[in-house]
Amino acid sequence: MAKEQLPSRSQDFSDWYNRLVLRAELADYSPVRGCMVVRPYGWALWENIQSALDQRFKATGHVNAAFPVFIPFSFMEREREHVEGFSPELAVVTIGGGEELEEPLVVRPTSETIIGHMYAKWIKSYRDLPVLINLWNSVVRWEMRTKLFLRTTEFFWQEGHTAHGTEDEARAETLQMLDVYADFAENEAAVPVIKGRKSESEKFAGAKTSYSIEAMMGDTRALQAGTSHNLGQNFARAFEIRYLDQENELQYCWTTSWGLSTRFIGAIIMVHGDDQGLIMPPRLAPYQAVIVPIFRNDDERSQVMENIASIQSQLSNLRVKLDDRDGLTPGYKFNDWELRGVPLRIELGPKDVSEGTVTLARRDQPGKKGKTVVKQEGLTDVVGDVLDDIHASIFQRAQAFLDENTHQPEDYAGFIEVVRSGWADVWWCGDSECEAEIKEETKATTRCIPLDQPSGEGTCIHCGQPASERVIFARAY
Amino acid sequence: MAKEQLPSRSQDFSDWYNRLVLRAELADYSPVRGCMVVRPYGWALWENIQSALDQRFKATGHVNAAFPVFIPFSFMEREREHVEGFSPELAVVTIGGGEELEEPLVVRPTSETIIGHMYAKWIKSYRDLPVLINLWNSVVRWEMRTKLFLRTTEFFWQEGHTAHGTEDEARAETLQMLDVYADFAENEAAVPVIKGRKSESEKFAGAKTSYSIEAMMGDTRALQAGTSHNLGQNFARAFEIRYLDQENELQYCWTTSWGLSTRFIGAIIMVHGDDQGLIMPPRLAPYQAVIVPIFRNDDERSQVMENIASIQSQLSNLRVKLDDRDGLTPGYKFNDWELRGVPLRIELGPKDVSEGTVTLARRDQPGKKGKTVVKQEGLTDVVGDVLDDIHASIFQRAQAFLDENTHQPEDYAGFIEVVRSGWADVWWCGDSECEAEIKEETKATTRCIPLDQPSGEGTCIHCGQPASERVIFARAY
Repeated sequence: MAKEQLPSRSQDFSDWYNRLVLRAELADYSPVRGCMVVRPYGWALWENIQSALDQRFKATGHVNAAFPVFIPFSFMEREREHVEGFSPELAVVTIGGGEELEEPLVVRPTSETIIGHMYAKWIKSYRDLPVLINLWNSVVRWEMRTKLFLRTTEFFWQEGHTAHGTEDEARAETLQMLDVYADFAENEAAVPVIKGRKSESEKFAGAKTSYSIEAMMGDTRALQAGTSHNLGQNFARAFEIRYLDQENELQYCWTTSWGLSTRFIGAIIMVHGDDQGLIMPPRLAPYQAVIVPIFRNDDERSQVMENIASIQSQLSNLRVKLDDRDGLTPGYKFNDWELRGVPLRIELGPKDVSEGTVTLARRDQPGKKGKTVVKQEGLTDVVGDVLDDIHASIFQRAQAFLDENTHQPEDYAGFIEVVRSGWADVWWCGDSECEAEIKEETKATTRCIPLDQPSGEGTCIHCGQPASERVIFARAY
Repeated sequence: MAKEQLPSRSQDFSDWYNRLVLRAELADYSPVRGCMVVRPYGWALWENIQSALDQRFKATGHVNAAFPVFIPFSFMEREREHVEGFSPELAVVTIGGGEELEEPLVVRPTSETIIGHMYAKWIKSYRDLPVLINLWNSVVRWEMRTKLFLRTTEFFWQEGHTAHGTEDEARAETLQMLDVYADFAENEAAVPVIKGRKSESEKFAGAKTSYSIEAMMGDTRALQAGTSHNLGQNFARAFEIRYLDQENELQYCWTTSWGLSTRFIGAIIMVHGDDQGLIMPPRLAPYQAVIVPIFRNDDERSQVMENIASIQSQLSNLRVKLDDRDGLTPGYKFNDWELRGVPLRIELGPKDVSEGTVTLARRDQPGKKGKTVVKQEGLTDVVGDVLDDIHASIFQRAQAFLDENTHQPEDYAGFIEVVRSGWADVWWCGDSECEAEIKEETKATTRCIPLDQPSGEGTCIHCGQPASERVIFARAY
C-alpha cells in the first residue's frame, strides 16, 4: 500500500497531527459527527494510562465505582453555575422504549450532580467520611468543531469525586490529586507540566477553585492536561450532602472532583512527535520495543527466527512486538514502526545470529546516531536502561522546549509578540475584564496561576494595576 | 446502625436477593428509572471479572478498542431482524447542543451496526483478516421492570466483534469464545454451566446461530450467563464488509459477536449465596480474606495489631482486608463480612499472639465446622490452599444442586411437574410453535440445546413428533 507523505510539523502542525492520528491507527472518525472510534493501538495506550493512574488513585485510598450514563435534566439545574456552563453542550434523550419521556435525560457531561444525589443518600455520619470514589467512563459534550482526542463530543476519562468533613481536607485532596497528575505526566508520559490555579473565568462550572496541569505542545500552544476542582460546599448545598459531626450537629460536606481524559493522548502526540511520526513514551507505549527480523532466504529466516524466540523470552517482562509480517521489507517495517512511535527497534539478521548480537535503534535519535550493536547476553538490562534513557531524553527535550518558549516580556508590546509563538509568564492583576481584553487582542488566555510563585509584587502586564501573582498566558487547545 | 434481618432464601428468594444487593453495598438504585449505581464493592468484583476475562481474550489474540456510545438511527434499520429485536428497547437522543438533530441518535444497545460500518472501511484484503476486537463499555436497553444486575436499562459488559475470511473460522471463533466463557465461569466464579445452542426464537436478533452458557440459580431458575453469536454474513451484507481474497475476488466477511455482562454478578450472588448473605468465589472476591483483631484493652490491642502487620505482609500476594474499625465488636464485624461474602476470616487475639496462631473461619462452612486454629508460620500456603478448597467446595455444591434439580421426565405431565422447581432435560422437536405452547402452558422456555448430546433419537416431550436433540427447558431470569 502506497501511503501519502506526512506533512512536516513546521509546514502544517494541525494537518500533521490529524493525518498522524489516522495513519498510526490511533483513532478514526465515526459516522456520528463529533464522536471518535479509538482503535486498538490508541486504546492500548489509553489502557496503559489508565493502569498508571489507577495505581496512583488506589495508593492514595480511592476506590472505583460506576454511575449511570443518564442524569435527570432537573439535576443539572440545581447548581446555577453548573447548568450555565453545561447547558449549551448537552445531548438529551427524549424517547425511551418507544415513548416520549416525562422528564428528558441528559447523557452525562460530567457526574457531579448524580454523585451529589447519591452521596446525600449514603453519607449520614462523620464515620462515613471521607468518600473517595473514582469513575472510569465516557462523557458527552456537544462539539461543533472536532479534532480527534482533543475535542470530541464523546471522550473517555476518569472522574474522581470525593466528600470530606472539613474544608482543609477537601483542599488537601484537590492539591494531592493535582500532584498525582503531575507525577503521572512527568514520570510516565515524560510530559513536563506546570501546576497552577485557574482564573475565575477559566474555572470549572460550579467549582470554588480549579487547578490544572498545563503542558506545552510542539507548536508552543498550551494544553490543559488534567484538572482538579475544589467544589467547596456548592454541590453539597445543592444536593444536601450532609453529615452528623462528632458533636451530633448536621454539617454540609466539602467536595472535590478531578479528571484526566483521552485529551492526554493528544498531548503525548504533540509533545513528543516529530516529522517521522509518533514517539511513544516508553513507560506507556503499547509496544516498548519491536523486533524486526532480517534475512534473505529460508535458511537464514529459520536461524534468525529461532534466535528471536530466545530474545523474546529474555524480554518477556517488557511489551515487545515481533513484526514477522510476510512480504514486507525490513525498510518498510522500520518506517512503519517509526511512524507508530515504538521507542526501540531491535534488528536481528544472520550476522547477529553468528555473533550473538542485536542492533538497537532508538526512536528518539533517528538515523545512525541512535543505532548501537549490543551483545544478546544481558539484553534485558540493556534494553531496560535504554528505555529509561529514552524516557529521560524525551522529557529533557520537552522541558528545554518549554523553557525556551516561555518568556517574561517587560511590557504589553513584548507580550503581544511572545504569545504569537510561546508562553508569557507575567504579572497580572486578576481582573476578569482585563483578561477578556487580552484574549480579544491576542487570542492568549490565562492558562494557570502557577503554584510556584516568586516573592514580591508587580504591575499587570496589560492594565498596569498592582499585581500580586504571576500568570501563564498562552494560546491554547 | 441496627440493620433489618435478611429474609431467608426459602421464604422469599427474590426479596432476599434485592435486599442483599443493597445491604452488601454491591449496587444501588439510581434516580434514573432502570439505571443502577454499581458501588465500590460491586465494582471491585466486576473489575476482577474483567481482568479474568481480559486475560483470556488477549491470550486468544483479541485486542480492545472503544466505539461511540451513539449510533445513527438509520444504522439500526439495515439488518431486518436486528431492528425488529431492538426497536422497542431504544433510548433516543433527539437534541444535541441545544438543537433538534436532523437524524436522531440511538444510545447503543449493542454495537454490531457501527462495528459493521467501521469494519467495512478498515477491511480491504484477506491480509487484514481476521479482525479480533473486544469492547468494555455499557449499553442501554429500556426496561420497565428492573432488578439490580439482572435487568437494568443500562448495564456494563464486554462485546467482542470479529470478522473472518471463512465460515469455518467464524464458527470456530464463536465456539472458542463460548469455551472461554465456560472456563471463566467454572474456574474463576465456581459457577457450573451448560454450554449449548439457542433455539430459533431465543437467538440474538440478527444472528445465524447463538450459543450460551446457562447456569442454575439457587431457586432453580436458569440464567443465561454469556452468549456467543455466529452472525454468518448477515451484518457483512448489511454493511458491505468485504475483502479481496487471494484470488483477488471480492468476498463478504463472516462475523461473530459475543458478550458477558454485569448480569454475571447476579449469577454469583444467586448461585453461591446463603441465608447469611453473599459467598464470593475466592478467585474473584474483592477481598479474599478479612482480618479481624480481637482485644479487650489498649495493651492487647497494640500486641495484636503489631502481630497483624506481619500477617499482612506474609499475605501481601492476596487481597486481604484488615477490619480495624473502632467502636464495633468482633461479632458485629463477623456478621458484616459474612453478609458481604468474604471467603475467609482470619481472627487474631492475644492468645494467638502468644501461641503464634490464628483462627481461620471459612465462609462456606459457617459455625464451628469451618473454624480451625493454624500456625502463623507457613500461613501463606495454608491460606492459599484453603481458598482453593473453598473454590472447589462451592463449585461442587453448585454442581450437585444443578444435577439434583435437572430431571428427565418421561411425559408431558411429568415435564409440567419438574419445571415448577427445576430444569427439564428432554427430547424436543425444534418447532417454534411447539416451544411457544410449552412456554404458554408452563412458563418454561428453551434455555439451550446442549452441545453435549446423547446418541439416538426420541419423540418431542410436548407434541410427540420425532426429535433429534435433547433440550434444557426451565423458567429463566
